[in-house]
Amino acid sequence: MPDLQYVPPKEFERLRRLPLKPLDQAALFATCCRINALYMIAQAGSGHIGSSFSSLDIVSWLYLNELQPDDLYFSSKGHDAPGLYAVLLGLGLIPFEQIHRLRRLGGLPGHPDVATPGIVTNTGPLGMGISKAKGMAFAHRAQGKTNRLFVLTGDGELQEGQIWESLAGAVRSDLGELTVIVDHNKIQSDTWVRDVADLGDLEAKFRVFGWKVARCDGHDFSTLATTLRRLRRTSDRPKVLIADTVKGKGVSFMESAAMKTGERFYRFHSGAPDDASYARALQELAEHAASQLAVLGEPPLQLEIRPRSDRPSAQGAQRLIPAYSRALLAEAEQNPQLVALDADLELDCGLIAFRERFPDRYVECGIAEQDMVSQAGGMALRGLLPVVHSFACFLSTRANEQIYNNATERTKIVYVGSLAGLLPSGPGHSHQSVRDISVLASIPGLVLLEPSCEGEVAAAVEYCVRGTAESCYLRLVSIPCQVPYQLPADYRLAEGRGVALTEGEDAILFAYGPVLLAQAYEAAVRLRKEQGVGLSVINLPWLNRVDDTWLLETIGDCRQVFTLDDHYVAFGQGQMLAARIAALGVPGAVVRQLGLDALPVCGQNSEALLAHELDAGSLARQVAAVVQRERQRA
Amino acid sequence: MPDLQYVPPKEFERLRRLPLKPLDQAALFATCCRINALYMIAQAGSGHIGSSFSSLDIVSWLYLNELQPDDLYFSSKGHDAPGLYAVLLGLGLIPFEQIHRLRRLGGLPGHPDVATPGIVTNTGPLGMGISKAKGMAFAHRAQGKTNRLFVLTGDGELQEGQIWESLAGAVRSDLGELTVIVDHNKIQSDTWVRDVADLGDLEAKFRVFGWKVARCDGHDFSTLATTLRRLRRTSDRPKVLIADTVKGKGVSFMESAAMKTGERFYRFHSGAPDDASYARALQELAEHAASQLAVLGEPPLQLEIRPRSDRPSAQGAQRLIPAYSRALLAEAEQNPQLVALDADLELDCGLIAFRERFPDRYVECGIAEQDMVSQAGGMALRGLLPVVHSFACFLSTRANEQIYNNATERTKIVYVGSLAGLLPSGPGHSHQSVRDISVLASIPGLVLLEPSCEGEVAAAVEYCVRGTAESCYLRLVSIPCQVPYQLPADYRLAEGRGVALTEGEDAILFAYGPVLLAQAYEAAVRLRKEQGVGLSVINLPWLNRVDDTWLLETIGDCRQVFTLDDHYVAFGQGQMLAARIAALGVPGAVVRQLGLDALPVCGQNSEALLAHELDAGSLARQVAAVVQRERQRA
Repeated sequence: MPDLQYVPPKEFERLRRLPLKPLDQAALFATCCRINALYMIAQAGSGHIGSSFSSLDIVSWLYLNELQPDDLYFSSKGHDAPGLYAVLLGLGLIPFEQIHRLRRLGGLPGHPDVATPGIVTNTGPLGMGISKAKGMAFAHRAQGKTNRLFVLTGDGELQEGQIWESLAGAVRSDLGELTVIVDHNKIQSDTWVRDVADLGDLEAKFRVFGWKVARCDGHDFSTLATTLRRLRRTSDRPKVLIADTVKGKGVSFMESAAMKTGERFYRFHSGAPDDASYARALQELAEHAASQLAVLGEPPLQLEIRPRSDRPSAQGAQRLIPAYSRALLAEAEQNPQLVALDADLELDCGLIAFRERFPDRYVECGIAEQDMVSQAGGMALRGLLPVVHSFACFLSTRANEQIYNNATERTKIVYVGSLAGLLPSGPGHSHQSVRDISVLASIPGLVLLEPSCEGEVAAAVEYCVRGTAESCYLRLVSIPCQVPYQLPADYRLAEGRGVALTEGEDAILFAYGPVLLAQAYEAAVRLRKEQGVGLSVINLPWLNRVDDTWLLETIGDCRQVFTLDDHYVAFGQGQMLAARIAALGVPGAVVRQLGLDALPVCGQNSEALLAHELDAGSLARQVAAVVQRERQRA
Repeated sequence: MPDLQYVPPKEFERLRRLPLKPLDQAALFATCCRINALYMIAQAGSGHIGSSFSSLDIVSWLYLNELQPDDLYFSSKGHDAPGLYAVLLGLGLIPFEQIHRLRRLGGLPGHPDVATPGIVTNTGPLGMGISKAKGMAFAHRAQGKTNRLFVLTGDGELQEGQIWESLAGAVRSDLGELTVIVDHNKIQSDTWVRDVADLGDLEAKFRVFGWKVARCDGHDFSTLATTLRRLRRTSDRPKVLIADTVKGKGVSFMESAAMKTGERFYRFHSGAPDDASYARALQELAEHAASQLAVLGEPPLQLEIRPRSDRPSAQGAQRLIPAYSRALLAEAEQNPQLVALDADLELDCGLIAFRERFPDRYVECGIAEQDMVSQAGGMALRGLLPVVHSFACFLSTRANEQIYNNATERTKIVYVGSLAGLLPSGPGHSHQSVRDISVLASIPGLVLLEPSCEGEVAAAVEYCVRGTAESCYLRLVSIPCQVPYQLPADYRLAEGRGVALTEGEDAILFAYGPVLLAQAYEAAVRLRKEQGVGLSVINLPWLNRVDDTWLLETIGDCRQVFTLDDHYVAFGQGQMLAARIAALGVPGAVVRQLGLDALPVCGQNSEALLAHELDAGSLARQVAAVVQRERQRA
């Protein structure tokens, strides 16, 4: 595991002191920022290189030459945050030691959050940026301010309906202070935008919506400068600059142009580079900086070195998404009505094998969750069984009304939300789906369930497809999980019923999903061993259903009941269970709900578990405190 | 209260037998359908005349001359349902006796539902229609079918982002079988589309998205016929026909052209006409039909007469929306940072006075809930206090991710959802907001509350604006309510605490909002009088918060606890309360949750309460059964 390198503050100071023309200064600054963005992502173990690099020349130019003190800039897509952080760090606007803390607790979140200096608004969910800027402009005008607003959007992001919903209002209000810059790098999460959902004539689209449109090379500082200057003169209309960029720009093998013919997936959208790629990329960037400096008679950059932080091994971990892929494919082989829909997360949702095997039964909808869900509704009405995929955070909330509308038609649809729960906690709260139970669980005819391990995934998929006439929401954890428990050999998935993973006489705990069940199991082991406390850990994969008979039998004589949600405590599974226990009137039972009670933190997974007191140690402590108190009372 | 008149089946049979040219037949048929749509709306006491009339010529033509047996038609906007029903009734596709049962239990729902013969998909929430048609087309192709699809949209509806999100995919799939017809009547819910959110060059917009575009007069059958015929020949591209129509077409004083200069609100968007307007409109339509028939040497239509059904008087009822208007205005006078946002429901959300008093602090966003909520987020970040309005069903679900995104910025925003709860039940499930608590209650820093009467509205608004640093969701019942209880003179709104409306020793019931509190209060009165049962009815306006101390004090020795939700039982206030009682471990308490446990029915308000066993009689019966059982046990 080699060390990592970054451009330290004193080198940025050197650049500032050099008698450079703005164009040269920006080019050099951007190269330094690329080195630092790469460093942060490598250090964090994840992050979006491709769009950080495609947007970095634009962002560098804006901060160095375009933005006036009162002007505001933010990125609507938000996942280019490492690039923006690199700029803010390079300018001294963020304390420099934060460069080592991307996606760490108390550090720089995976997606922008206003708690970070220089960050104007929270982004990460796509398509909201122009709307937010309109609101800001309204406020500025009300306050007599003349701040300008610059908003960067992705190009894949333009598939979101909210973008087009937001355009007319800006024209109505003559928002000349608003400039949108499209980072048109032509590749979205999975692959080429043109293959996912072609944008057509983008200039004409914005123009017909009433916007002033310009277009230029987003890596040519000279053209950027003149184009922005020209736009500045159009005072009373909102402006859009379509900047043609290259995803991964600045490192030859990371550039989209380096993709081979027929290569479908761009490799540097998210995730850290491997060691060799990191070293090669760093070398290229450092050499580029050196040649830029050499022209000025300056020595190369003096990079600082820092060891790469440790990360837990995923060896032996269970992976639910690949298990899901296999199970879905097996069901599809049996059921010709089954079709799969995706919203630009083919890779993350485990759909590659399905697409390859059943290209005619696969619909890639692009970043258009509402459209996808309503399409599924139409398919179900006409006899198909649609299986709808996205990240849980987006699927459950962006398309919430559409899911309900489908439910009112009493058809059968399977929704699959991956990346569910608190972890991974690196991307931050926009991606941590800890609210999806609450927003879906009240829908009549929609069963919510979450498997606890690879083995249960297959049973859950079978249930969703064949085991019920109701629609289902399958909640899936995406991170590799160390699963210390085994489901009993005779355990079968049965609606509303769960299974004990440990035996215990002092307290009982209901949970679901591999992340927190693993912590609870470990807590039970420790409690038994270290404190002689017996905690029965129950895997209840049903998130909005429980079988009363099973519940009463399972609780038995136990009176100290815990629930544990990989979700907000408010309106999660635990609340449903507690309410059911209150309805059954279990005498003397006390039900304590554990889970999230505040916005989830961003950080390494272990940091997040600890911060929310959901790690094994914290769980053991909380259970032990209750049991010891009861023992003293008795 | 005069009688109502409609065109009976035998008159439609007579028309069918007449040797008419298609153009004349369609014109006469459409007039008959206008008479019947008007009848249905007058009989129901509500419904959308304006858009039923603007679309009726198009819909008549399609059914009479364009649709092949396998072709499908539906309206994406859905609120023109009375017009569509009139066509389906006229063609014998819906049992004719249903004409008397618009918005009645088991009758024709306020917005389309697939349970009705001839209805293809559930619409009413806007913007989903094209997406659904795309899904249907995909299914047809998979099944080797060649059905064509015709989808009607509104023009105001085109403000919804999902419309634009859905356009590209149809081009990608060469959906030549899809024809979208825009009922371009130029007036949306409140007023002229151009004044709310001008659509700009609509033809150019669709064209730049890759659609084949045509435009014609939507009331000229000859042009309609030739335009549709021409479109039929473009086989491989999705088509849109922009049909220029007149809202209220067919009755002189209901036509938008009859609006006076400066008149802001169109009077016949929704709601039944008064007696005089009904009579005048009927006379005009009948005379028009007579003149059409006279040309053919035929006698006038023989209309059948039916008494208008009784409707409950609203005399003495409380109206929460006007109370809200006054309270908001009072707060705005004190707080210059307060701004109001609306999504084309100025009238329904009680915002007229605000707009007139503070035009510069009012933002009309059009039918664009996501854009509105994100704009509010931007305003809050820059120092304003946005108060965001729409119907509860749309605000809470369409903009769900946007509301959460705002919450992650920890700014303060007030959301106001009107038309909350089961009633009015006439519009049907798309508009009955019985899921908003569930979808919002888990958001950290968002307090949900619902006032129980006009008096509590003022206190609630004051709390939302000044009483807390948290964001709030104010849930408002829109129907006039008979409120039989009075809040105690010394009662003050305090977070998490409620107030007893009746005293009772046998059971306690927690509820909120005027609709079900009135029923519960009435149940308590009856229980005391008729069965000697004491039911304590508690108004708890806090939907996701409860004060433990107050809760324990209030329950006291009572062990039979009921909760009552104007919402699904699943993940509503009652579940939150029951879980809290389980957490507090109240020995021997049994908590029974009442509320909705299935899709809300469409019907008159009294029908819906009865169907869901939420009327006073049903509540009394359920409470009495428990109390009597306990007494026998004791």
